[in-house]
Amino acid sequence: MDSEFLRKLIMPAQTKIAMIIMDGLGGLPLEPDGKTELETAHTPNLDTLAGQSILGLTQPVGPGITPGSGPGHLAIFGYDPIKYEIGRGALEALGVDFELGPNDIAARGNFCTVDASGVLTDRRAGRIPNEKSRELVDLLRTIRIDEAEFFIELVKEHRFAFVLRGPGLGDALTETDPLTTNVPPLLVRALHPDSQNAARLVNQFVEQARRLLADKYPANMILLRGFARFPQVPLFKELFGLDAAAIAINGMYRGVARLVGMTVLDVPGETLTDEFTALEKNWNNFDFFYLHVKKTDTAGEQGDFLGKVHAIEEVDTLIPGLMALKPDVVIVSGDHSSPAVLKSHSWHPVPTLVYSNYVRADGIAEFGERACARGSLGCLPATDIMPIALANAGRIAKYGA
Amino acid sequence: MDSEFLRKLIMPAQTKIAMIIMDGLGGLPLEPDGKTELETAHTPNLDTLAGQSILGLTQPVGPGITPGSGPGHLAIFGYDPIKYEIGRGALEALGVDFELGPNDIAARGNFCTVDASGVLTDRRAGRIPNEKSRELVDLLRTIRIDEAEFFIELVKEHRFAFVLRGPGLGDALTETDPLTTNVPPLLVRALHPDSQNAARLVNQFVEQARRLLADKYPANMILLRGFARFPQVPLFKELFGLDAAAIAINGMYRGVARLVGMTVLDVPGETLTDEFTALEKNWNNFDFFYLHVKKTDTAGEQGDFLGKVHAIEEVDTLIPGLMALKPDVVIVSGDHSSPAVLKSHSWHPVPTLVYSNYVRADGIAEFGERACARGSLGCLPATDIMPIALANAGRIAKYGA
Repeated sequence: MDSEFLRKLIMPAQTKIAMIIMDGLGGLPLEPDGKTELETAHTPNLDTLAGQSILGLTQPVGPGITPGSGPGHLAIFGYDPIKYEIGRGALEALGVDFELGPNDIAARGNFCTVDASGVLTDRRAGRIPNEKSRELVDLLRTIRIDEAEFFIELVKEHRFAFVLRGPGLGDALTETDPLTTNVPPLLVRALHPDSQNAARLVNQFVEQARRLLADKYPANMILLRGFARFPQVPLFKELFGLDAAAIAINGMYRGVARLVGMTVLDVPGETLTDEFTALEKNWNNFDFFYLHVKKTDTAGEQGDFLGKVHAIEEVDTLIPGLMALKPDVVIVSGDHSSPAVLKSHSWHPVPTLVYSNYVRADGIAEFGERACARGSLGCLPATDIMPIALANAGRIAKYGA
Repeated sequence: MDSEFLRKLIMPAQTKIAMIIMDGLGGLPLEPDGKTELETAHTPNLDTLAGQSILGLTQPVGPGITPGSGPGHLAIFGYDPIKYEIGRGALEALGVDFELGPNDIAARGNFCTVDASGVLTDRRAGRIPNEKSRELVDLLRTIRIDEAEFFIELVKEHRFAFVLRGPGLGDALTETDPLTTNVPPLLVRALHPDSQNAARLVNQFVEQARRLLADKYPANMILLRGFARFPQVPLFKELFGLDAAAIAINGMYRGVARLVGMTVLDVPGETLTDEFTALEKNWNNFDFFYLHVKKTDTAGEQGDFLGKVHAIEEVDTLIPGLMALKPDVVIVSGDHSSPAVLKSHSWHPVPTLVYSNYVRADGIAEFGERACARGSLGCLPATDIMPIALANAGRIAKYGA
């Protein structure tokens, strides 16, 4: 459905929507006949909620497509993830709370090790500790080149966000990371004439970095990849009329939320309870709450089936507290699947429930992949979830007479 | 699916399709664990038919969108309801069998009461009886303004259809109804330069009406809203190759059927049996029959759960007679949901069955929302129903070699 069509029907209401996103929620059984992580988890509260909800399996991008965290989140936020592409570099910069602007090109940067002949020997510079890389980031910040500004922000260990700021720069650039060792880092090339200027500036920066870092073994060189401009997306408030708050520990998710114009809340610590405390504290101030749970994906990507089960069970314990706030609509879903057996993101559709007093509940009191496959939502685009949630929150006017 | 693609594959056949539309069919339970209106209704004939059918839930416009009757019907008739928008005024004029043309702008009109200072005191003029308003409509018909023609048709009580006819008139007009009392009626304003001429003509008409009605208390003024041109839609016969007949009591539904080029049949009375008699009598003359049932929606909008249940049960009693005619395809569905608990149209998908000798029947001998959610059609756009019906009627040729 066209977002412009929906936007015209949006009407205000005094209702609240809570969206709980368990990162990488969808899973797979360990054995062909077995249960998935979510099906294995003891989730009495989610099961009860499922019984009062409509269930389905969401496809963030399309059938067979494995989404990254960016498109996975954009889709469940109601944005077409193919139309609005967030480059890796932009995501990295957003993730460290960098305020990307329209004249910026961002990239993922990292320190690496080269030998005396300039050949790569370690693409991650032995994962140097933050204290060390903080020092080197300060060094890179001294680089000056006419015509452009550069910003470097430490991410973690060997990783940093790189931003090139200047008017009229194109982002059709090749990467410097050859993705293998025993070869030298690559020069950046423009893939389009409009990006030639940016290529020249980045190559000048990298050359100066090489000289500055020459005696900083093992972090004696840098690699840059995922050059990307800041994507221009319509604001959540404009599209859906919602004052939205985002609760997430990790920078990337705060970044995507900020990209769509959500207010990113302070979280008093790094636990799920801390996140929930932030939600409770701000309950009266917003219409929409996005709460991100990272552990499910971390465990999935590590192949830690039981770890993922426990992470889901931890979320289950929060549900009574959430329901005590009397939200009008609750969405529990994920941004993509991350089955422990695959140790990675996957293309599998994502179990999803939508609760409200006005859903025609499927009466399936179980939150799991196979249960959701039997739900009335069927297998649907993740972008359909926001309109359904808005309708249940009394925020969409009738179309036509 | 693109309608042009389908159109090229349409082939003739000696088959008949019957589409029974229970207005506002979809419902909700009174209690969270309860049954919907349709699930509550005793429908042995529909249940048997369901067992020989494929079942699903149709979405007339899109996820979360509450359709008006116009878009709801267009969708189940196979027309994209977002591409073809029917304005309120056009629907009102079609509903009184007015033959709208391309130079016409229609509006919903009604008599109202104003006090000596011109301030609205009753937006419906005490719902004056038809005999009284017929007289006043005749009075309005005496109004003459150069450059344009006006047509006034009584709808019912205080309501009338208003049509302005003239070359090159735009319909981007504001309404005169302030939607509240204690203020005077508004002047019409053009929202686009192409509509300035129309605004001027309408305001002249309203001013003359005010003078003519001055001593006709309580109907001493008029209100106009929902200005709209006649939407241009491809004809049902051209798209699907069907000679179609429409059977409906209420004007609006006859109007939509006429819009798509169906032949609107005379109905000998106002009951469901009268409608069915019209269908039986004309069975040999058409390929496609649309039979509209209004009571389901009326009860739903009045919050009359049991009234809706009874209206559905009444339809159930017609099914044996319908099946005795040996239709090749039967569709039973609705144009939207109208749950009694919401007392209004709603966004919930609509229970739908498609029967033919050639469906791969789901074997679910129950016609209800949750039963349809388990059906093989899943949750699908309402516009998909016509191609499925046509295929089962042997009216779509193979695509490609």
